[in-house]
Amino acid sequence: MRVISLLTDFGTQDEYVGVIKGVILARNPTAVVVDISHAVPPQDVPAAAVMLKAAFPYFPQTAVHVVVVDPGVGGRRSIVALALKDGPIFLAPDNGVLTPILMDARPKEVVRVENPAFFLDRVSRTFHGRDIFAPVAAAVAGGVPLGRLGAPMAPTDLVRIELAAARQDQAHAVSGTVVGVDRFGNLVTNIDAALLDPATHPDLQVRIGAHRIQGLGTTYEAAAPQRAVALIGSRGTLEIAVNRGNAAETLSVGKGAAVRVDWPGGAADTPTDP
Amino acid sequence: MRVISLLTDFGTQDEYVGVIKGVILARNPTAVVVDISHAVPPQDVPAAAVMLKAAFPYFPQTAVHVVVVDPGVGGRRSIVALALKDGPIFLAPDNGVLTPILMDARPKEVVRVENPAFFLDRVSRTFHGRDIFAPVAAAVAGGVPLGRLGAPMAPTDLVRIELAAARQDQAHAVSGTVVGVDRFGNLVTNIDAALLDPATHPDLQVRIGAHRIQGLGTTYEAAAPQRAVALIGSRGTLEIAVNRGNAAETLSVGKGAAVRVDWPGGAADTPTDP
Amino acid sequence: MRVISLLTDFGTQDEYVGVIKGVILARNPTAVVVDISHAVPPQDVPAAAVMLKAAFPYFPQTAVHVVVVDPGVGGRRSIVALALKDGPIFLAPDNGVLTPILMDARPKEVVRVENPAFFLDRVSRTFHGRDIFAPVAAAVAGGVPLGRLGAPMAPTDLVRIELAAARQDQAHAVSGTVVGVDRFGNLVTNIDAALLDPATHPDLQVRIGAHRIQGLGTTYEAAAPQRAVALIGSRGTLEIAVNRGNAAETLSVGKGAAVRVDWPGGAADTPTDP
Repeated sequence: MRVISLLTDFGTQDEYVGVIKGVILARNPTAVVVDISHAVPPQDVPAAAVMLKAAFPYFPQTAVHVVVVDPGVGGRRSIVALALKDGPIFLAPDNGVLTPILMDARPKEVVRVENPAFFLDRVSRTFHGRDIFAPVAAAVAGGVPLGRLGAPMAPTDLVRIELAAARQDQAHAVSGTVVGVDRFGNLVTNIDAALLDPATHPDLQVRIGAHRIQGLGTTYEAAAPQRAVALIGSRGTLEIAVNRGNAAETLSVGKGAAVRVDWPGGAADTPTDP
Repeated sequence: MRVISLLTDFGTQDEYVGVIKGVILARNPTAVVVDISHAVPPQDVPAAAVMLKAAFPYFPQTAVHVVVVDPGVGGRRSIVALALKDGPIFLAPDNGVLTPILMDARPKEVVRVENPAFFLDRVSRTFHGRDIFAPVAAAVAGGVPLGRLGAPMAPTDLVRIELAAARQDQAHAVSGTVVGVDRFGNLVTNIDAALLDPATHPDLQVRIGAHRIQGLGTTYEAAAPQRAVALIGSRGTLEIAVNRGNAAETLSVGKGAAVRVDWPGGAADTPTDP
Repeated sequence: MRVISLLTDFGTQDEYVGVIKGVILARNPTAVVVDISHAVPPQDVPAAAVMLKAAFPYFPQTAVHVVVVDPGVGGRRSIVALALKDGPIFLAPDNGVLTPILMDARPKEVVRVENPAFFLDRVSRTFHGRDIFAPVAAAVAGGVPLGRLGAPMAPTDLVRIELAAARQDQAHAVSGTVVGVDRFGNLVTNIDAALLDPATHPDLQVRIGAHRIQGLGTTYEAAAPQRAVALIGSRGTLEIAVNRGNAAETLSVGKGAAVRVDWPGGAADTPTDP
């Protein structure tokens, strides 16, 4: 009954994801496989890293999270299994996709996945999702200890990537980036709620593209219909939305756009030391 | 082993639906979660209402149906749980999405969902699908009585919406609307089969856009390839299709288009009273 | 706990697939339903045939594979159930979609599905996926013998279709076709690895559109970033990819394009007899 989550860039038009599930269930008939998403932009490791971090805490602590966003498939990159102290296990290419997990949580164990006893009999060079990730996930969910998968690694030896980070410019000003546009056109930024002080600063101002939004709302309906609202979104970061509309379209802003927030006591009012 | 169905406008590009499933399975490991669709047009409550009505009767009578098409999330709208006399339970925002259920079936019990003991510990203002709907669905599927979720409501106090309804113009003429275009380009109307009398009227005529279709077919192949056919579709309503083609493209007709049906003894033949 | 796989052209925007799962679970609560794909191009029977062949061997041998790509729904085509000697059962319209299964494997039993005792009470003419395939799959997965579904058929009586096949032109030259473009833009051909001799012929040359690719790579990274590479893909056939890019876009080549491979000792070097 153990949950195996899947996060890939395979899309769902082809048979790839179904095949992965077939392999898992052939080896572990009681596994419960859940899709996080298969719409990660092709080979976009940072996007997968951000989604993984947003999703995994809501899953059972015994879940096995499988990430196959893997431009280096079949090459020299390793596949790794990482167990956290409080339970979940991650199975991923060692390409940096686990970076945000490593920033926030302490690993209990990391191993290089290299024991072919847990792979399919024939391993292709192009579809390790099917030939390695799926059967290994089935084994781990079935209770195989990580130590049997391969040699231990130091967590510090895992590949890490730079993730766009919000920056505190002055005491009361923060610069960040739109890191995603969801299906509603909401602009999800990398500015963590903790960097702002919304409760005490109704005069907080958000600048994005040519637009300025005054104050933080608490719900999408805090703005009039078709008007922009800034609020803390479901990932715990600043989000810009348009009430009953599509912010990306209305504001003509997309992924990668700069976002700046400042508020009284901040840049405009309190010049910093020269 | 109880089924929980999901009907949302979240799409599947983001992690939102996966997160909802993670929350459900963390609290109810034996639940079986089934997607009805996550492609409801954003915030289109009437579209969700129509899909829910078409889908739920085919599910187990013990299913819990969760609808999260919720433009008012975090605002003043309520969340409600509705149990029907013959079994299924619906969990939805009180925004009218249950209107067709209420037209056709008698509620056994309705409550306002307000007991935070069944919510996630931290409830955001932007993602009640994760923070309220998912854990409450897990609880209800696990046997928690509706009465523990919150105060009872009179079914008549639920919000209802106007749904485009077909209209009988004269004794033998009906006017309706295209309420959906499916993946095949089939034009699904709101004209219920019961309003027509196809068995006895081979001369029935369907008008849509600039087109006229003579008679009702019984299968898509009733017309020659690439030709239009009118028939009773899978929702039990009039549908216009193109055999081995795409009616929406071929006829240049889309959602919202007017459809008129008349047949002998109808408008053309029997003028109504002046 | 038996797996039922689904392969359809229904898409996931509408409620159709969810309804099929509802019907299955209402009749067989322990079935595990897995999507192979619902994005088969509408009514494209050959595309479904190729995907089915690529996917089914990875599923449990006890799986029931349901294919609903069915332009003839409600017409005179039959529905058939086919059991292979080594286990899996296929349920499909008799429209040729099982052709590649029949080429590779020996059927143990074939029957025409015609016993309404296993159908929904009301059978529409437009949605047999819901009214026939789903309840019959639930029954078969629950152990109902094929013989109870209908009369036996000779495997040779099943409809077969022509599938684009690669052709060996000379001793060392093969002509084939792009049969699919996956989400990454990889060009999947119908040239089976067995037709080539990559290990011994580094001078093998692939011609596609206006492009020539020298040699077979073993991984996508065998080429420089944004450069084309030919390799054996996950279906065991020749595939043309662009490392960290999209071959379909970069090479301006799509489904149906001709592909030719030759190598030393082949056409260019060894003229065939006049």
